[in-house]
Amino acid sequence: MEIHVYHGPNLNCLERRDSSQYGTQGLEAIDSSLVELGEELNVEVVARQSNSESELVGWIQKQDKDGLVINPAGLTHTSVVLRDVLELAEYPVVEVHLSNIAAREQFRRQSLTAPACLGQISGLGLQSYELGLRAVVKHLRA
Amino acid sequence: MEIHVYHGPNLNCLERRDSSQYGTQGLEAIDSSLVELGEELNVEVVARQSNSESELVGWIQKQDKDGLVINPAGLTHTSVVLRDVLELAEYPVVEVHLSNIAAREQFRRQSLTAPACLGQISGLGLQSYELGLRAVVKHLRA
Amino acid sequence: MEIHVYHGPNLNCLERRDSSQYGTQGLEAIDSSLVELGEELNVEVVARQSNSESELVGWIQKQDKDGLVINPAGLTHTSVVLRDVLELAEYPVVEVHLSNIAAREQFRRQSLTAPACLGQISGLGLQSYELGLRAVVKHLRA
Amino acid sequence: MEIHVYHGPNLNCLERRDSSQYGTQGLEAIDSSLVELGEELNVEVVARQSNSESELVGWIQKQDKDGLVINPAGLTHTSVVLRDVLELAEYPVVEVHLSNIAAREQFRRQSLTAPACLGQISGLGLQSYELGLRAVVKHLRA
Amino acid sequence: MEIHVYHGPNLNCLERRDSSQYGTQGLEAIDSSLVELGEELNVEVVARQSNSESELVGWIQKQDKDGLVINPAGLTHTSVVLRDVLELAEYPVVEVHLSNIAAREQFRRQSLTAPACLGQISGLGLQSYELGLRAVVKHLRA
Amino acid sequence: MEIHVYHGPNLNCLERRDSSQYGTQGLEAIDSSLVELGEELNVEVVARQSNSESELVGWIQKQDKDGLVINPAGLTHTSVVLRDVLELAEYPVVEVHLSNIAAREQFRRQSLTAPACLGQISGLGLQSYELGLRAVVKHLRA
Amino acid sequence: MEIHVYHGPNLNCLERRDSSQYGTQGLEAIDSSLVELGEELNVEVVARQSNSESELVGWIQKQDKDGLVINPAGLTHTSVVLRDVLELAEYPVVEVHLSNIAAREQFRRQSLTAPACLGQISGLGLQSYELGLRAVVKHLRA
Amino acid sequence: MEIHVYHGPNLNCLERRDSSQYGTQGLEAIDSSLVELGEELNVEVVARQSNSESELVGWIQKQDKDGLVINPAGLTHTSVVLRDVLELAEYPVVEVHLSNIAAREQFRRQSLTAPACLGQISGLGLQSYELGLRAVVKHLRA
Amino acid sequence: MEIHVYHGPNLNCLERRDSSQYGTQGLEAIDSSLVELGEELNVEVVARQSNSESELVGWIQKQDKDGLVINPAGLTHTSVVLRDVLELAEYPVVEVHLSNIAAREQFRRQSLTAPACLGQISGLGLQSYELGLRAVVKHLRA
Amino acid sequence: MEIHVYHGPNLNCLERRDSSQYGTQGLEAIDSSLVELGEELNVEVVARQSNSESELVGWIQKQDKDGLVINPAGLTHTSVVLRDVLELAEYPVVEVHLSNIAAREQFRRQSLTAPACLGQISGLGLQSYELGLRAVVKHLRA
Amino acid sequence: MEIHVYHGPNLNCLERRDSSQYGTQGLEAIDSSLVELGEELNVEVVARQSNSESELVGWIQKQDKDGLVINPAGLTHTSVVLRDVLELAEYPVVEVHLSNIAAREQFRRQSLTAPACLGQISGLGLQSYELGLRAVVKHLRA
Amino acid sequence: MEIHVYHGPNLNCLERRDSSQYGTQGLEAIDSSLVELGEELNVEVVARQSNSESELVGWIQKQDKDGLVINPAGLTHTSVVLRDVLELAEYPVVEVHLSNIAAREQFRRQSLTAPACLGQISGLGLQSYELGLRAVVKHLRA
Repeated sequence: MEIHVYHGPNLNCLERRDSSQYGTQGLEAIDSSLVELGEELNVEVVARQSNSESELVGWIQKQDKDGLVINPAGLTHTSVVLRDVLELAEYPVVEVHLSNIAAREQFRRQSLTAPACLGQISGLGLQSYELGLRAVVKHLRA
Repeated sequence: MEIHVYHGPNLNCLERRDSSQYGTQGLEAIDSSLVELGEELNVEVVARQSNSESELVGWIQKQDKDGLVINPAGLTHTSVVLRDVLELAEYPVVEVHLSNIAAREQFRRQSLTAPACLGQISGLGLQSYELGLRAVVKHLRA
Repeated sequence: MEIHVYHGPNLNCLERRDSSQYGTQGLEAIDSSLVELGEELNVEVVARQSNSESELVGWIQKQDKDGLVINPAGLTHTSVVLRDVLELAEYPVVEVHLSNIAAREQFRRQSLTAPACLGQISGLGLQSYELGLRAVVKHLRA
Repeated sequence: MEIHVYHGPNLNCLERRDSSQYGTQGLEAIDSSLVELGEELNVEVVARQSNSESELVGWIQKQDKDGLVINPAGLTHTSVVLRDVLELAEYPVVEVHLSNIAAREQFRRQSLTAPACLGQISGLGLQSYELGLRAVVKHLRA
Repeated sequence: MEIHVYHGPNLNCLERRDSSQYGTQGLEAIDSSLVELGEELNVEVVARQSNSESELVGWIQKQDKDGLVINPAGLTHTSVVLRDVLELAEYPVVEVHLSNIAAREQFRRQSLTAPACLGQISGLGLQSYELGLRAVVKHLRA
Repeated sequence: MEIHVYHGPNLNCLERRDSSQYGTQGLEAIDSSLVELGEELNVEVVARQSNSESELVGWIQKQDKDGLVINPAGLTHTSVVLRDVLELAEYPVVEVHLSNIAAREQFRRQSLTAPACLGQISGLGLQSYELGLRAVVKHLRA
Repeated sequence: MEIHVYHGPNLNCLERRDSSQYGTQGLEAIDSSLVELGEELNVEVVARQSNSESELVGWIQKQDKDGLVINPAGLTHTSVVLRDVLELAEYPVVEVHLSNIAAREQFRRQSLTAPACLGQISGLGLQSYELGLRAVVKHLRA
Repeated sequence: MEIHVYHGPNLNCLERRDSSQYGTQGLEAIDSSLVELGEELNVEVVARQSNSESELVGWIQKQDKDGLVINPAGLTHTSVVLRDVLELAEYPVVEVHLSNIAAREQFRRQSLTAPACLGQISGLGLQSYELGLRAVVKHLRA
Repeated sequence: MEIHVYHGPNLNCLERRDSSQYGTQGLEAIDSSLVELGEELNVEVVARQSNSESELVGWIQKQDKDGLVINPAGLTHTSVVLRDVLELAEYPVVEVHLSNIAAREQFRRQSLTAPACLGQISGLGLQSYELGLRAVVKHLRA
Repeated sequence: MEIHVYHGPNLNCLERRDSSQYGTQGLEAIDSSLVELGEELNVEVVARQSNSESELVGWIQKQDKDGLVINPAGLTHTSVVLRDVLELAEYPVVEVHLSNIAAREQFRRQSLTAPACLGQISGLGLQSYELGLRAVVKHLRA
Repeated sequence: MEIHVYHGPNLNCLERRDSSQYGTQGLEAIDSSLVELGEELNVEVVARQSNSESELVGWIQKQDKDGLVINPAGLTHTSVVLRDVLELAEYPVVEVHLSNIAAREQFRRQSLTAPACLGQISGLGLQSYELGLRAVVKHLRA
Repeated sequence: MEIHVYHGPNLNCLERRDSSQYGTQGLEAIDSSLVELGEELNVEVVARQSNSESELVGWIQKQDKDGLVINPAGLTHTSVVLRDVLELAEYPVVEVHLSNIAAREQFRRQSLTAPACLGQISGLGLQSYELGLRAVVKHLRA
């Protein structure tokens, strides 16, 4: 079983973002944790980051995975294109956010993409990803 | 370590609610799963349900727990009182929802209570609770 | 056949409210009229009042009636909890209002609860209840 | 005593409209029921339908009736002209709707005309009319 | 002369709330100050706190006092029920807030309950209550 | 100790304004009451009125007082300039209103200036000023 | 020179409308005054009333006049059709209202039709028409 | 096969409307083009214009055609009545506009009627109609 | 009989403003026309201009006139202070505008001051003033 | 004559999208139909798809075509960049949509890009494209 | 060449305002810098401050300068009067702000006055003024 | 010292855009001016243009410059992604616009990106860039 994890724009610079919102770990640390958790759960984890909406769309269109954990970052609130591609995915998707988007600026409180996913996990830092991975795996095994 | 799980109004009738949104398990099944997961994680899980805002407020005010998983149900979108009491809690709280509130009626898409929590997990059915429990425990052990 | 009538918050003080909106009869007079009309229609009428959202929720959850006439009073405009419990009722419910809520303050013009009922009757004073009772009975007999 | 019943635009095609909203009876069946109920209540019932706002306005301006039951249909939400004429009526008027307008599209949830009526009854199908007739008659006899 | 002071939800935990908004005194200290000021003004002060909307409604419905100082706390912004009961009170009521609600989150800036009171005092900490007491007493003696 | 009281536009014509909102006393009567209360509280009270935003701004910028009670009248709802000058005041300011602004036209319900003050008192007529004076004095002595 | 005056829906029942808004004169009295003023101004005045949007549209489309005074009544706030026909008129048009529409319900404060006219006169009762007539005549003679 | 074309209010004066929005051809020229195109497509084209909402409603209710091309003109943005009658049509309908309504005043950008049609064509002048006719015919032949 | 005419901010530079909105005449020409019309109507006309809200307020507060024609210019849309002073005027006031404010930018379409006047005349250039003068005089003589 | 057809994001997966909205044909079938229709109309059709806003911008900036049919898909509602580039195109552009965007989610009902095009065709499936092609060709030949 | 610099309300107290928004320099330091830069650019700089809208209007109406740099301060967001006078200025005007108004409270993000200027410079402290001066001078010399 | 200048989407076609908004110079002319000004200020200027959000993000993430002048063009109003990357830049950034965005369509008046910059300069054509460059350099040297 292969689960993909896609990090949206600017998450490649995680360690330079506001640590009160995003924590102190870098993206590599997150990816290692997820690969490790994947081994524990007996699934292969493939993680990628892109700053490009169209590259993310291309990845999501592909049938090369059993499930997806996605952090659409700044695209969460503005991209109908991402919502459209998530709606045509035939595998389970969980949306995750490091920060608690309900407690931030007004324009970050609504998610255009979440309605096209199974569910959403936010505010738990690295854990948001880990729980997202667990959710996708459990959903596939149910 | 003792973690409480509070279910808000109408969750005592879970098996009679719209199963396309809430799944088919009843509240007892959810509570057993959580107790079981608690044993696996080596924490005691205490679960309660109330239809009363004031009773929930009374429970949350008490210092008798190390962490809280809460599904405020219909109060999520309307209760400043619940937000206020969550803001004065000195233990970690994670908000959970069985259904994907981002994909439902307009008035269910905004949460008044989530900004007073660590984070929010929605749309994953029973799993929302399980992941919420994991999140609280991991947060306490970090 | 047993039909329940639930009066929401502050309706126990009906005779002290603005008579241009609520008329001059007290709650007891309303209840007697309904019992009398019940006899005429050959149904048993049970009327109760509560100021507590959670008590109302508890009553509505019970399967102890064939139909319900409810005046949610001030909760009409603010309670998602009441809407949720009305959505899971398996018996017919009609919402009634003594005053013409369409002709009052802006915040009273929209009803959160009516979409979960069969229909709504407003502005006809005591008659709103009587017609609500007739509607529920006729619906059950159809 | 003579009570008029005015059906607004498109109600002459009732049997072709969405039956989940409007039921399956045609306008003639509604009118017969009302005449019959009128006999029972000892009042004469005169029913008419028009697709024309100005024709409805002309009818309402006339003093040739003791009371009115009106279903303004699509004009409910858009016609200040209809509200104005209802405000100058010197006989009691009750607004009725076959469907539960509180549970339909956003633009159908607000009524421009209801504030100029005694009250509003919606969502009860044919019964909305019958109860409207009862309400007008009882109001006149009180 | 007997004046009641009702504290709304979560004010029993005052000393645990954000002191930059609510000051550092506890509820008991506020109540003692008010009793003391009552003696100075020659009135009896009775103070109570409740987390329950319906309990507050029950207290307010009673005719057992000459005037009321109320801090509706989180219910200020959401409770039509509380507004309704304040509208039927036959004694003078002044609404008070410890914090300056005009300077806080958007949802705390509008009060549903204040229009049903004589007036509102906010932002002056313990003094908001003391001035509220003075206002009610002076109003009764005028 | 010297406390200033500034009355905003049109308050010099108080006795000609709507007495159901503003009471029947004139501005001079208010000022005498405040001077008298000042004597009781052992502070000097200096009261002035201006119809000019810029004159008010000039007065507020001056450091010639220990505290301020201000009724910005019609400027309350529209003047960012007044808010700015209140924000740079280094002495305590309390905003007062004769009428209950929460219960008037929509455009009077929001105050642009209150967030720059210690607090706000409204709806208590002459008493709003008296309590404002007490609040400023007590704040200075605390 | 021939000036037309068109009265919109319900103005034929003027003497039955709320006299605090519409004054006490009937439509005939208005028309006589206008004919008389027309004689004084040396123009022929032709006045008509219709409850029908389409009839008004038909009249306005005709080139049979030198100028127009129109009171669109309830259509003022809702009719794009009327705005469109006014935009294609090749003669001067002035919109008039008996009542001060700026001081009435929210939905009467905006005029869809006024932007297609030379100008608007409101709140002056019969005078609104007389001044409208003067304005059209003076505009034609300038 | 018979296709009807209905032109809404004011389109009978097309050559007098703003030619930058509506082009320079008159309604007769449009109708001839459509009849001619009908011959090419082997269908009979019947074109009519009305300024009256109710007349349009009457035409649409009739089952005397196989398909409809409609330009509701100013009624597009305001008529729930027209939407309702289009919803009960059992033949295919395409909405057309001469001008590009998306590029005009705010109130012309939303169409109440389009959701009840197969689709909408706007901004292409006479071509909007021709393409609408093609669309209806092709839909019927598919 | 003495009628005042007050011109608000920037009207002293009338001849430099956009002539498509404001015409080509200067303020002096307007004032001469009004004095001349005053003679014809047998009233004394006193005209003044001010750029200062507080100066206008001072003028309006004075009882030195029998009626007022006012063009509040840019203050029309923003000044609660001006509305307040117009509300306490005991003589008739008519608001006038040179341009058709309904046809300009969104922020110019609503008038805060008109609800405190007898009525409003806009869009007729110099004539707006002349008709305003006639309206005030006729109102005084009625 | 060469006409380009640009398909926006996710249209390369057309056959996997919701067939009730998008029909059952794939993108290749659409392109073949268009090429075929092009032959009939005697123009060369070049069709391309991209998931990338910037790639689409690059294509549109090029002067290598005589006209354009574009389906901006999810970018329709969110891309000012696309609107800007369409505004600088010197060839005719028609916007097309497979689904009836007026009948879908609220956020799909407004088009940012249509005002920069000649016109818009929506809701007609494959036909939307064919009619768009006809429109561009006819516009060029006129 | 003579360039004026007008500072709006409260800028005379600059050194007492929030230094995180406004920097630490006083108004005199700003004026000296500008005079100095003026010398470098070979223009005379005349700087003035006023707390009065009408005084600012008077200054702007005068033709005694070749260009203007203006910081309308709190009037930026509320004054149609200032916008009107800037629209009739026949010399170039640049609006400047010390703080980054796009990053402050919601009500400071929109400028009513900027559309009447050449452009706007904000957020650069003293530099906003210096660059504004350069912009005006360069514009005049171009 | 090296300052970068990034031009957003469609600025490579500057000379084809609406010259009343964007002036007549091309992008090369702007870049030459900036390089020249850089020499005068003794800094190296590197200018680039991209139509791609993700390419801009990549450039901004790089630490290869001392400061940045950016014109985000159409992305200004829609891109949370761009705002996020600007927030993590550790060098000073100034946002510039050729046109006066405050005076254009409603959707261009709000900037999502400006709050993440030092400040914003708009409406001054080529000068917006030159002044932006000066601002960045001066900020770095202060």
